[in-house]
Amino acid sequence: MATLYATHCGSHSKGYAYSSFSPINGVQNQRLAFSSSFPWRDVSAKANVVLQSRRNSHQKAVLMQDGAVATTVTPIKNETTLKKSNDASMSIPSLEEYKDFAGLDVNGNEPTVSITVVGASGDLAKKKIFPALFALYYEDCLPKHFTIYGYARSKMTDAELRNMVSRTLTCRIDKRENCDEKMEQFLKRCFYHSGRYDSEENFAQLDKKLREHEGERVSNRLFYLSIPPNIFIDAVRCASSSASSANGWTRVIVEKPFGRDSESSSALTKALKQYLEEDQIFRIDHYLGKELVENLSVLRFSNLIFEPLWSRQYIRNVQFIFSEDFGTEGRGGYFDHYGIIRDIMQNHLLQMLALFAMETPVSLDAEDIRNEKVKVLRSMRPLQLEDVALGQYKNHTKGGVTYPAYTDDKTVPKDSLTPTFAAAALFIDNARWDGVPFLMKAGKALHTKRAEIRVQFRHVPGNLYNRNFGTDLDQATNELVIRVQPDEAIYLKINNKVPGLGMRLDRSNLNLHYAARYSKEIPDAYERLLLDAIEGERRLFIRSDELDAAWALFTPVLKELEEKKIVPEYYPYGGRGPVGAHYLAAKYKVRWGDLTVDQ
Amino acid sequence: MATLYATHCGSHSKGYAYSSFSPINGVQNQRLAFSSSFPWRDVSAKANVVLQSRRNSHQKAVLMQDGAVATTVTPIKNETTLKKSNDASMSIPSLEEYKDFAGLDVNGNEPTVSITVVGASGDLAKKKIFPALFALYYEDCLPKHFTIYGYARSKMTDAELRNMVSRTLTCRIDKRENCDEKMEQFLKRCFYHSGRYDSEENFAQLDKKLREHEGERVSNRLFYLSIPPNIFIDAVRCASSSASSANGWTRVIVEKPFGRDSESSSALTKALKQYLEEDQIFRIDHYLGKELVENLSVLRFSNLIFEPLWSRQYIRNVQFIFSEDFGTEGRGGYFDHYGIIRDIMQNHLLQMLALFAMETPVSLDAEDIRNEKVKVLRSMRPLQLEDVALGQYKNHTKGGVTYPAYTDDKTVPKDSLTPTFAAAALFIDNARWDGVPFLMKAGKALHTKRAEIRVQFRHVPGNLYNRNFGTDLDQATNELVIRVQPDEAIYLKINNKVPGLGMRLDRSNLNLHYAARYSKEIPDAYERLLLDAIEGERRLFIRSDELDAAWALFTPVLKELEEKKIVPEYYPYGGRGPVGAHYLAAKYKVRWGDLTVDQ
Repeated sequence: MATLYATHCGSHSKGYAYSSFSPINGVQNQRLAFSSSFPWRDVSAKANVVLQSRRNSHQKAVLMQDGAVATTVTPIKNETTLKKSNDASMSIPSLEEYKDFAGLDVNGNEPTVSITVVGASGDLAKKKIFPALFALYYEDCLPKHFTIYGYARSKMTDAELRNMVSRTLTCRIDKRENCDEKMEQFLKRCFYHSGRYDSEENFAQLDKKLREHEGERVSNRLFYLSIPPNIFIDAVRCASSSASSANGWTRVIVEKPFGRDSESSSALTKALKQYLEEDQIFRIDHYLGKELVENLSVLRFSNLIFEPLWSRQYIRNVQFIFSEDFGTEGRGGYFDHYGIIRDIMQNHLLQMLALFAMETPVSLDAEDIRNEKVKVLRSMRPLQLEDVALGQYKNHTKGGVTYPAYTDDKTVPKDSLTPTFAAAALFIDNARWDGVPFLMKAGKALHTKRAEIRVQFRHVPGNLYNRNFGTDLDQATNELVIRVQPDEAIYLKINNKVPGLGMRLDRSNLNLHYAARYSKEIPDAYERLLLDAIEGERRLFIRSDELDAAWALFTPVLKELEEKKIVPEYYPYGGRGPVGAHYLAAKYKVRWGDLTVDQ
Repeated sequence: MATLYATHCGSHSKGYAYSSFSPINGVQNQRLAFSSSFPWRDVSAKANVVLQSRRNSHQKAVLMQDGAVATTVTPIKNETTLKKSNDASMSIPSLEEYKDFAGLDVNGNEPTVSITVVGASGDLAKKKIFPALFALYYEDCLPKHFTIYGYARSKMTDAELRNMVSRTLTCRIDKRENCDEKMEQFLKRCFYHSGRYDSEENFAQLDKKLREHEGERVSNRLFYLSIPPNIFIDAVRCASSSASSANGWTRVIVEKPFGRDSESSSALTKALKQYLEEDQIFRIDHYLGKELVENLSVLRFSNLIFEPLWSRQYIRNVQFIFSEDFGTEGRGGYFDHYGIIRDIMQNHLLQMLALFAMETPVSLDAEDIRNEKVKVLRSMRPLQLEDVALGQYKNHTKGGVTYPAYTDDKTVPKDSLTPTFAAAALFIDNARWDGVPFLMKAGKALHTKRAEIRVQFRHVPGNLYNRNFGTDLDQATNELVIRVQPDEAIYLKINNKVPGLGMRLDRSNLNLHYAARYSKEIPDAYERLLLDAIEGERRLFIRSDELDAAWALFTPVLKELEEKKIVPEYYPYGGRGPVGAHYLAAKYKVRWGDLTVDQ
């Protein structure tokens, strides 16, 4: 198999082959100063063409925010900057202007990035963020000059932080070369600053330390807020006022929960926007960083064979399935306040749905894609109570081992009605998808661990082979399965003649199993997302209006469930979930693809 | 994977799941008396429906010929029978009538089949026909009572024939159980009769012997003519007049060549029809018996995902490729008279093309399929001289071994211009395929041995990922490959994101590799075709009008080539064929899929 286009961080040219960015010889190492929406990318062989493209003015606008907004929180000043940029958008800037845009130091120093992990002693930081940063470093994806700071309340020395971090770093199986050495170099760039999350003073101390590391360089700053939602705003306020970059960009990554309904989400967004511009906020949904979710658009839009089938004319239903094979296991306190719909459906599954169902975007630029996603969400009917099936796992004894009920979790109220399982039927009322059920299913403590998208195609009209399929035509339906995790794969179930005399048909898979095809280890979602945040690529992050639209779909039913104190159907730990999910599917003539014999 | 419908010979119910035949409990063992076009199959649970279907009168007509025509060669009498049958087509026959139709002995004896291999000492008989008959026997696909006769000029005893046959019998790897025992039983049913091919007397002697074996049973007779074309007619005349069945059907299998142009083919057909009805003639094209050619219709018509794409709107071109990795090797005498176009293209490749391109047939019945195939052939433009590239292999020395030129073959004239390689561009002038090039390529002494169909899809309109494919958009084209031999497989080339950070695309295969998926050995094409002939299933045999249409496409250019003494391009033995094939493809903006790096 030939690789059609190769980009890799090793040459400092991840270079967003999907956007119009093309690294220029000799200045490649400076690329991290250019967000992928920076017009520099237009200075390639195709500069003249691209500079006059319709996307350009938008890119400039974004750039200016990147370059200038971070140091200020006054919207009015920004408006001015933005306008100025737009006015200039059709002229080709001089090299000096480029340098200025790019945040290049006039002395020619390369810019630096300082990454502060706020909540550095937390689980996510240890398990995901630091390892992802190391992986990016190992792959040469971080800029030459970078500094990592852990920030948390506990007292810790740099050495203690390094010790803590080092315990979770691993090298990929296929990248063991010099790994220890690389780890050591990486850890040398890691520091710790102890402080309160609501103390401007403590953040100002951090700022001072950061400046020491950054020196004369243009300093870009990324804050990763790995802290509980109730202290988001305080931390954002302090970071923004006391630790923003003076001459580069400042960006903040926030993780869910983004509120627990439309109102609380709006309030959070409003509060964030007191201190940050939309373009500084990187709302992470780590499912969007998963390899096969990234691949969804490639599959659809770069293969002729899929797009013609991608509509109500050929697709009978689409299923988004998420299963975990473990329960809350003593950590249900947070979960109980949210429940499975908020925890998985309203974000991860809905994001996959939006990417799956969106119209072809104008380009692969972040705003174009996010515009299309918002359109999908806004075309959807809010979820109705009768289109939801809920479950909660109860204890179950198997092989002498007793698995606990959800309410056995010490951190969960004994009388909790919080669903640990939910199935839902959603509809997109647009020309492409009218009447096609989009089913979602998410649950904890089930028999298997997986996340997948299943596309069930319609029956063949006037099928000559109907007789061969017996009474259940569903068995003969083509199905495209995109298995997001674990063991990534894409397969297309087709009907095939079983070799031999006579005419037996069966379902075989046209199969692409990643482990068999690609020897390379698949990077963790956090690596991709962190790199994108550093590069200013917003494609995989959730915009405020997307978030609003997502909440609008789920808030009414979530309120109704709570008001009516709907009791979930109990299902045994490790089982296949409540049967209610089947009845919900049956109502729309759907059969869950993951629970058939012939998966 | 669940198998959707199981039929197998073991229970004497191959049962043509693709037609409307359904075996009935208790009479399954009699099934071989019913041709698959026999109305008995309508006596299933769905009898009332099917008996009133529009297909019925046709089926009856065929039946009557099966049952009655064999003993007579008077067309007029047949016409009458046919008419009578048509008149009766809307009434439901009584059980007695069924028995009569079916050729069931009134005493309840099961019918027998006598298979005479005319030309029993030839290569094809030894290598293919006897082994295929044994395989059918092993799989319980032959009726309980059967007799096999070898017929040839040489003197041989039954024991000598058995000895000769036994040397070529093998058991499938997955079917070794009782194989020796089964072989012994099989050989006991094999006999030999020596006679001339043009002697009615010798055939009458055969008839006498056959009758002894057949006893009181209804006797069906199948003659397999494995003899040179110049003695076809004599043998048919003698078999028909002196060795036809008196109370069952008589069928004749003939192999190519069916003439060498329109005129000689018509003459042959006309001569055959002096002695046989169309429905008694089984023109074999063994490519139609190949597993993946059989599967072509299943793929297309039982999968929703393919049919919408099956037209000029999505398909850019289709390629039919046949390569052999050896030359004539001292047996070029026959070949030199025909050349590669007649030997491979006009039959094997054109048959695959017709199956590939035909419209959806009314049903899977033989006549419906053959009607559609004829329509395709008749919609095609006759091949033009400028749309042909010819080659002939020359000698080549590699690794110290010299491989001979075609004209080094002692049986080939030194100055032969016969092409051993040809490429051709054909067009179907109908609504579905207007403007789509159908390219064919066939050659001997090439670097590889394979037969495959390659469907190249169009470029994605407005492809968002164009930049990722560099300058050659052909590289990004989806391609469906059906590899007929060796190592059967179906794969669909798709563009996929290479896992990892950044956005590299490559072409991966959605793959169905038969050897990996199906443990069962794939039966030889001859097994399927012999069984079909015994069962009266004509789907895979070539009708006279098909043959006429096929010759009409190639005859003008074949004549022109010979008249103008066109010199083929010489290519080295074991190479990739003449470059002329590339220029022909380029003329129609096609790139041969089998010669790209990324096959």
